[in-house]
Amino acid sequence: MGSLNGIKILDLTRVLAGPYATMVLGDMGAEIIKVEMPERGDDSRFFGPHINGESAYFMSINRNKKSMTLNLKTQEGKEILQELVKKCDVIVENFRPGTMEKLGLGYDEIRKVNPRIIYAASSGFGHSGPYSKRPAYDAVVQAMGGIMSITGHDMPTRVGASIGDITAGLFTTIGILSALYNRNLTGEGQKVDVAMLDCQVAILENAIARYLVSGEIPGPKGNRHPSIVPFENFETSDGEIMIAIGNDNLWKKFCMIAHREELIEDEKYKSNPLRNENYESLKIIMDKIMEEKTTEEWQHIFDEEGIPNSPINSVDKVIENEQVKSREMIVEVDHRVAGKTKIPGIPIKMSKTPGKIEKAAPTLGEHTKEILEKYLTYDEEYINELRNNGVI
Amino acid sequence: MGSLNGIKILDLTRVLAGPYATMVLGDMGAEIIKVEMPERGDDSRFFGPHINGESAYFMSINRNKKSMTLNLKTQEGKEILQELVKKCDVIVENFRPGTMEKLGLGYDEIRKVNPRIIYAASSGFGHSGPYSKRPAYDAVVQAMGGIMSITGHDMPTRVGASIGDITAGLFTTIGILSALYNRNLTGEGQKVDVAMLDCQVAILENAIARYLVSGEIPGPKGNRHPSIVPFENFETSDGEIMIAIGNDNLWKKFCMIAHREELIEDEKYKSNPLRNENYESLKIIMDKIMEEKTTEEWQHIFDEEGIPNSPINSVDKVIENEQVKSREMIVEVDHRVAGKTKIPGIPIKMSKTPGKIEKAAPTLGEHTKEILEKYLTYDEEYINELRNNGVI
Repeated sequence: MGSLNGIKILDLTRVLAGPYATMVLGDMGAEIIKVEMPERGDDSRFFGPHINGESAYFMSINRNKKSMTLNLKTQEGKEILQELVKKCDVIVENFRPGTMEKLGLGYDEIRKVNPRIIYAASSGFGHSGPYSKRPAYDAVVQAMGGIMSITGHDMPTRVGASIGDITAGLFTTIGILSALYNRNLTGEGQKVDVAMLDCQVAILENAIARYLVSGEIPGPKGNRHPSIVPFENFETSDGEIMIAIGNDNLWKKFCMIAHREELIEDEKYKSNPLRNENYESLKIIMDKIMEEKTTEEWQHIFDEEGIPNSPINSVDKVIENEQVKSREMIVEVDHRVAGKTKIPGIPIKMSKTPGKIEKAAPTLGEHTKEILEKYLTYDEEYINELRNNGVI
Repeated sequence: MGSLNGIKILDLTRVLAGPYATMVLGDMGAEIIKVEMPERGDDSRFFGPHINGESAYFMSINRNKKSMTLNLKTQEGKEILQELVKKCDVIVENFRPGTMEKLGLGYDEIRKVNPRIIYAASSGFGHSGPYSKRPAYDAVVQAMGGIMSITGHDMPTRVGASIGDITAGLFTTIGILSALYNRNLTGEGQKVDVAMLDCQVAILENAIARYLVSGEIPGPKGNRHPSIVPFENFETSDGEIMIAIGNDNLWKKFCMIAHREELIEDEKYKSNPLRNENYESLKIIMDKIMEEKTTEEWQHIFDEEGIPNSPINSVDKVIENEQVKSREMIVEVDHRVAGKTKIPGIPIKMSKTPGKIEKAAPTLGEHTKEILEKYLTYDEEYINELRNNGVI
């Protein structure tokens, strides 16, 4: 039993930000009814690579969901959606702002049908402001929101995962859950409006403060931490290792391990602000220390002494990592067309109501009949008629 | 009125992952009681830059919170914590696993005192598995979890924001809210265990599927999208612009704008899978097209035609961006020691119970007396005694 069992979510989202949010809600036990355009479906069904014609991209973020087709441009399609709105707790969409209103399905219409519903919208720039109607994708908000400008070695760099979409998905999830909590108290739903750009600003955290205090525009800092030293990767005698000396105690330990006890009380390095100030000279000392041993030797010593460290793993190594395996963070699911595939597991481990990956991503329209029968008690004949008319 | 008004959160967290989670919960209206070690406080109070001795880093993620000092290593300190547990809905900590148990304050003890409490733990590797007791920082889980290996131009690159901490903070928030929702149904609390490493695996999304399907280990792809083309930044005649052609309709529009209509039906480029396959030759064509105009000319044309695009903004530009301003994503707060500072706003916009930034981050122990009087009805004399004994 998941913590959100019983919650029904009408999911009009496509590609990543919205589907990521409903994936997390589905993992927690909510029933996700994914509404897709007949014949075409979610754009991401076309993103490669494919297995037996099924997109690996789509499959990795749509597990646990049910798919029904519904053409929202037809009058019957709109009516069916509104009937489903009456039966659901949450509706989520990530269209460009204005799209739902144009369909006659904006929040003002939806809440007339069901005032208890929570209407969540995840969009590039949000439902207000001068950029509101502009289209966006992950790369656009990563560029606009500043994270690219502080990532990289000597030039702005896109984060390799679609962090613009994913953080928007997570904040949307938080908005929905907060609204559900509040609905339990008040009986009323509300609209949750999350913009990918806003989320990029939110995850800049101290970069904004650093700029405003120092007047210095933060640039890409390579692999170093902006304000903690030493906190980056170093070359060893046979490879690389990331170390993170996050406080003065760890610094003392490190100096002892390296047999450089004199550095502990050194006026240039004895506190983190000093190590920041004297980064350049310390880097030379660190480079020399670190190349004395192999990565594995350092790992072993650091693990013994509690110094945070890691090799830089590629995806194949991540999947094989014993901790990742032990936490069930790679899960095998059996897709009815693609067969057995592996996808990321659930990162929220709950003691009483653990999440569950019950089924692989749905094929397009796999549950259309089931949903229409279960929630709207349509009979087979009517369902066939809807299908013939291109409504579903 | 925030959606979580009335919820009381006992916050033992330090540095970033935990404080980020409780910041989001505080933004939504929960009361956050931040418990800090007397005299020292949260490690991040020592991270620069400082304004009048107050850390800008600390201030950017601890708004809306109350700070009380409490020495959990003293017997009275433990007892006071347990009294507070009785009054609170949630307790959050991000110590290394085992620390709370060693203090006699592990989940098994805490729930004896209050079975309705939600106990949330955010840690580097989680409360189970062979790495559980290891220390971690953002850079360590970014290295171990694979995101560094898929970020960058030609070598593994750390994401410039502490995405290891922040995503763990967001998943922890989701876990807490799910558990609160469930408690409304069942009356029972539970433990929520979130590992930074697990969250890194969760945000890899399709990179895992891509590797498992193709057998190819994903590497840093510069600024391109791993499976959508064209979706990266290009040089213009006077700078750079990011564009994101996320589907075939946008591709058609782009070809029309560029007066290269013949590309629309070109057998090498007419669909996204084909554009992926023929990336190299298309890149040459795109580079040529894009250098024909200035960044501003392209921006203007693309905005008119609805092609997703953006310049690559540095942090100063982000703060001045009209959309960011219009969405109130930069907020000024008045800190009683540091004075007026700007911090990121709230990215979850809720129509009925909007979040609110009511006050700047607390100074160390600013609310100790208030909390002890309000929740435990201690009198001034006793509070002074506790202070003299180093308990608070």
